[in-house]
Amino acid sequence: MFTYQILIEYEGKKFAGWQIQKNGISVQKVIQIALKKIIKKKIVISGSGRTDSGVNAFEQSAHFKTNYVINNKTKFLESINHFLRNHKVSILNVKKKNKGFHARYSAKKRTYKYFIINRVAPLALDKNRAWHLKKKLDVKIMKKGAKILEGTRDFSTFRASSCGAKSPIKTINFSNIKKVKDKIEITFISRSFLQQQVRSMVGCLKYLGEKKWSIKKFKEALMSKKRSKCAPPAPPCGLYLSKIEY
Amino acid sequence: MFTYQILIEYEGKKFAGWQIQKNGISVQKVIQIALKKIIKKKIVISGSGRTDSGVNAFEQSAHFKTNYVINNKTKFLESINHFLRNHKVSILNVKKKNKGFHARYSAKKRTYKYFIINRVAPLALDKNRAWHLKKKLDVKIMKKGAKILEGTRDFSTFRASSCGAKSPIKTINFSNIKKVKDKIEITFISRSFLQQQVRSMVGCLKYLGEKKWSIKKFKEALMSKKRSKCAPPAPPCGLYLSKIEY
Repeated sequence: MFTYQILIEYEGKKFAGWQIQKNGISVQKVIQIALKKIIKKKIVISGSGRTDSGVNAFEQSAHFKTNYVINNKTKFLESINHFLRNHKVSILNVKKKNKGFHARYSAKKRTYKYFIINRVAPLALDKNRAWHLKKKLDVKIMKKGAKILEGTRDFSTFRASSCGAKSPIKTINFSNIKKVKDKIEITFISRSFLQQQVRSMVGCLKYLGEKKWSIKKFKEALMSKKRSKCAPPAPPCGLYLSKIEY
Repeated sequence: MFTYQILIEYEGKKFAGWQIQKNGISVQKVIQIALKKIIKKKIVISGSGRTDSGVNAFEQSAHFKTNYVINNKTKFLESINHFLRNHKVSILNVKKKNKGFHARYSAKKRTYKYFIINRVAPLALDKNRAWHLKKKLDVKIMKKGAKILEGTRDFSTFRASSCGAKSPIKTINFSNIKKVKDKIEITFISRSFLQQQVRSMVGCLKYLGEKKWSIKKFKEALMSKKRSKCAPPAPPCGLYLSKIEY
């Protein structure tokens, strides 16, 4: 058996998320169908993590095990992308890995990016590709909020009720906000995240930026460890799984 | 009569270009229809220039004349964007101008940007939003080529046969190439461009990057002033009208 890692770019809009499920088509499913056409056997791939319905990826990572030998990487990539051509899914690379490699459990760092476009006019070019917020946001205060999220904490406030993680304690290594013209880019890096954690944090940062919350209120929400204290999570269209490091 | 300028963002994909025409729907047309719903009269808008079918705009500029008074700018923008909601067209701003203002004839500088994504894997997130080129391009040589295009020259080589400009002589004030990861951004600034000039120049720069042409060959194409010496023009999906300055 060989272990292969694949790197995947996708637009989440038309997918019911990464993971195979009964309702709707998933990214995992369309890749497995494409792999079967090449390998002629059912292949199960494991992603570095699930992304929710509508969430995008610059570079998701997954692995699969097979007896099939990928001799010619270029040809393999051409074939699989040919079978994926009707979906907004692209296999960026394939790498042979040690048998112990696991896309999810071996991951050391995950980077997520969230994009907000802060302007009055509706989005044409970035429609459904970013969160459109009309009210002028105070990015300086949002940056302060982002820094408060760094470190090892109990993130229960930002955890979806359906989250299956054993512990709500996570370490955010990096949390930062950049603004260029009307585009706000929020970056989070952590070994792992709780379900809906990023979108929940972005929802709270938005409340800060709108002056709906003070820094004090923001800290209280975090410290409360209560989901009920969280702002509404940001929509999935603005979220991009950016990079998995091993 | 008042003269108003509007700034417009649009995705070109579903349009047969800026200008009203018999075949297909144009950006100008959908804006005029939206304006008529507000002003209750037929309104003709004049753009800073035509963009071809499929070409995008970060910020196109147009003007129109009317007796209608726009008292409340915010309300006007909300209304017009409401009527445009089914199209990937957004009116970014509206400004009252002196009666002599003309979106096309008063323009002093036009900026176009062209995006190439240079990688083997097909595009998922940027599908139809950039020119996908698989073969590794030599960006250093392309930069040299871009610099050769600066200045006042006879650009007949890069002029579509259907171009209606009186003279093929234009001045390119700025021509530059930047590469970030696999994304190549080409910028041209000029008072005005010939029809298909940008896409024709990008097509020739691509030949340079692919080493299909040497710098000598590139110069010869430019100096020949012959359309037949031009490389195939780059596709419209990668082209963005970026800014009009007055």
